[in-house]
Amino acid sequence: MSAELFKEERFIEEWKVFLRFPSVGADPAHHSDCSACAEWLGQHLNTMGLAAEVLETPGLPAVYAEHRTGDGVPTILFYGHYDVQPVDPVDAWTTPPFEPALRNGRLYARGAQDDKGQAFSFLKAVEALLATGQLKVNLKVIIEGEEESGSRGLSAMLDAWRERLAADILMVADTGTIPDGTPTIVMGLRGLLHVAVTLRGPSHDLHSGLHGGLALNPVTELTRLLATLFAPDRSIAVDGFYDGIHNPTALEHSLVQKTPFDPVAYARSFGMPPVAGAPEYTPLERLGFRPALDINGISGGNANSMKTVIPSAATARLTARLAAGQDPNHCLEAICDHLKARAPDAMKLTIHDTGSAGAGFRIDPESAPVRLARDVLVDLAGCEPVYHWEGASIPIIPALAEAAGAAPLLVGFGHEDDHVHAPDESYSIAQFRRGFEYAAHFLQAAAGTHLARE
Amino acid sequence: MSAELFKEERFIEEWKVFLRFPSVGADPAHHSDCSACAEWLGQHLNTMGLAAEVLETPGLPAVYAEHRTGDGVPTILFYGHYDVQPVDPVDAWTTPPFEPALRNGRLYARGAQDDKGQAFSFLKAVEALLATGQLKVNLKVIIEGEEESGSRGLSAMLDAWRERLAADILMVADTGTIPDGTPTIVMGLRGLLHVAVTLRGPSHDLHSGLHGGLALNPVTELTRLLATLFAPDRSIAVDGFYDGIHNPTALEHSLVQKTPFDPVAYARSFGMPPVAGAPEYTPLERLGFRPALDINGISGGNANSMKTVIPSAATARLTARLAAGQDPNHCLEAICDHLKARAPDAMKLTIHDTGSAGAGFRIDPESAPVRLARDVLVDLAGCEPVYHWEGASIPIIPALAEAAGAAPLLVGFGHEDDHVHAPDESYSIAQFRRGFEYAAHFLQAAAGTHLARE
Repeated sequence: MSAELFKEERFIEEWKVFLRFPSVGADPAHHSDCSACAEWLGQHLNTMGLAAEVLETPGLPAVYAEHRTGDGVPTILFYGHYDVQPVDPVDAWTTPPFEPALRNGRLYARGAQDDKGQAFSFLKAVEALLATGQLKVNLKVIIEGEEESGSRGLSAMLDAWRERLAADILMVADTGTIPDGTPTIVMGLRGLLHVAVTLRGPSHDLHSGLHGGLALNPVTELTRLLATLFAPDRSIAVDGFYDGIHNPTALEHSLVQKTPFDPVAYARSFGMPPVAGAPEYTPLERLGFRPALDINGISGGNANSMKTVIPSAATARLTARLAAGQDPNHCLEAICDHLKARAPDAMKLTIHDTGSAGAGFRIDPESAPVRLARDVLVDLAGCEPVYHWEGASIPIIPALAEAAGAAPLLVGFGHEDDHVHAPDESYSIAQFRRGFEYAAHFLQAAAGTHLARE
Repeated sequence: MSAELFKEERFIEEWKVFLRFPSVGADPAHHSDCSACAEWLGQHLNTMGLAAEVLETPGLPAVYAEHRTGDGVPTILFYGHYDVQPVDPVDAWTTPPFEPALRNGRLYARGAQDDKGQAFSFLKAVEALLATGQLKVNLKVIIEGEEESGSRGLSAMLDAWRERLAADILMVADTGTIPDGTPTIVMGLRGLLHVAVTLRGPSHDLHSGLHGGLALNPVTELTRLLATLFAPDRSIAVDGFYDGIHNPTALEHSLVQKTPFDPVAYARSFGMPPVAGAPEYTPLERLGFRPALDINGISGGNANSMKTVIPSAATARLTARLAAGQDPNHCLEAICDHLKARAPDAMKLTIHDTGSAGAGFRIDPESAPVRLARDVLVDLAGCEPVYHWEGASIPIIPALAEAAGAAPLLVGFGHEDDHVHAPDESYSIAQFRRGFEYAAHFLQAAAGTHLARE
């Protein structure tokens, strides 16, 4: 594939248009922006030469497109998402999150990488192949609008869309490389569940002098309650939570040892060493093969100024990342049971906003799509890729792979410097170009293989 | 004293003027409002017939006023404060906090009771006595502007003002009655210390999937750290915290048993039973003779919507109420040492906004001022008052009493229904009138006693 197919200036301008939609799927105030974004993307894919349409779901719309080459060639289902994370704290952004700004070879915007940038780099490869008559696989594209908030709409449609989505390979552009930039095949993702907890005590805020030592304090009690979720060594002290975990195979174990991980560089990048989690596992094992439980937010009373009250309520939100083999519903129930059993009798515990549970999964390192991706990456980069078991989640992937009958394949070019989910998210033009080249080469290479289903 | 001295309509109008100043002493944005409030009050006291002036301090100004009768009569120093608590959550107020509104015989506003209402009811009694030539004691008035935020200015001036403040009795109008409304002599106050804790982890918010199990989470770790402050029975698990506590005397012990406390009524009023604190003490013993530690506010990450981050920091604010005998500085140091020893090495713990430590104290039930107050209250109410060891704090009182060489005497007419420090604070006209009558009678009765210092 020749280098002039990468139309940098035009690609960046189109990518900026895509980024200007404030498609925060989790925020109902932005749902019309999400619909507008889906409409734009559908039209854009049509212009590129795909047969595209916007599909309604019980949630936000999904964009579907396809190109049919014929029988006997593999069918690739390409998955991405057009929704983005919320932008708070918005004051921490150097330039506004929905006004894409190019600085030092990087495009800054919410979604610049996750996942608009990554998805768009792959789609531009499809465009280039189509324009030069080189797209020789059957291609299906599904770009949903709720990945960051649980994929409710797409999940609900999977059964109805089995035929439409049927494919051999589920190609996902929503992952990254290891910190040194070596091409990375993601061999698994963790599952995700979330739960919010509100503890209510007094019927109104009380004077902490007149009531301290009498009234139970929701902030204090929520703090004590949440602390019981963790053992002194920071393992998760919830009965049954670890049930069913698939331990790594000998091959997985040997491959993960080959993936470099530099704790000193980690500390430099993130301001602290990688010391959370159970110490008997290496950092990459913890990320790939072990679950984690995080309190993502807590709020109660006034933490900004001295106010001598016992507040009437306190709330926290937690997420768990699940290892392959853990049943998300079982884990959710275990956490809820743990909290209910330990909440003070005199208080009201409400567990809310639970769900969006997706399981973790791992991919066979010896499967044909993984071997093909490895060959393409060796060709492009001149070195062996690394096999990485990712800590993040794309909860829809296992369900989508099952519905499509496809083998998931996760190769992406994100990097920790991109600050996804945080202020000043960005994606470099160089990364965008690597995604473009990988996608173009993989789609060409796949055409010549016998990956097509019987 | 005849009933027509209580000029209800005029008093309410003047009280409303006092309440319209948003004198939130803890908030620098309201410091000019505090100064304006002090100016108004000084002029008002002058108009009443006292020699008043606004005194500068290193903090917010204090209002001082006096009336000299002559030698050989007791000198009463009257203390109150014109500053008020913050108004958050302001949306929870039925009417705006600084637009006083009369509903069903109660005046609603921030400070309606604490302490503008209580102080004003006493000051109006002084006015009535002055107007009728019945003020036969030497009276000194000090109304400060930082009671709710640590009395920094007044504390700093106490040494310089020893002569000015010298008195026999320190009369304080900033306490309440027990729930059934029986006249109440407050026999002690708890001390107060406050401390804020910020725990910082990663240098920026991290994706909780990519880092969960690697990066320490400041919300999780702050939660676990704060939980270590409490033993399973909710006692305070801080080495040295309980040092020096004065246990109640036999007389105190017998008097506190006589004060009624109805746990069922408590649960009805506040939505929960009085079950916090060490269970081996009765609720009133816990309030009067035991310390309490409360987390007044906590914040980290986003508790309002799902956001899968490991936030870079979390903050909590705590206050401790101290029993008589506990050294506030020692307790503060014990808490700080406890937190420092247990914070994760890889994180940055900042302890800030500490201080405003005032000691707790108790008053001898057999002292002359207490006996005089008891006689006045019996005359007015026709029943014995109760002796109550209060859980709240007025940290300046022990230091002010010491500087003035005066015996503190705390009789007030606040009630739990007044919702001080909370939305919809109010004070009834009936309570205001009781304060007025008590103050007038006490000042008259004191004139005929031999309380004057040698």
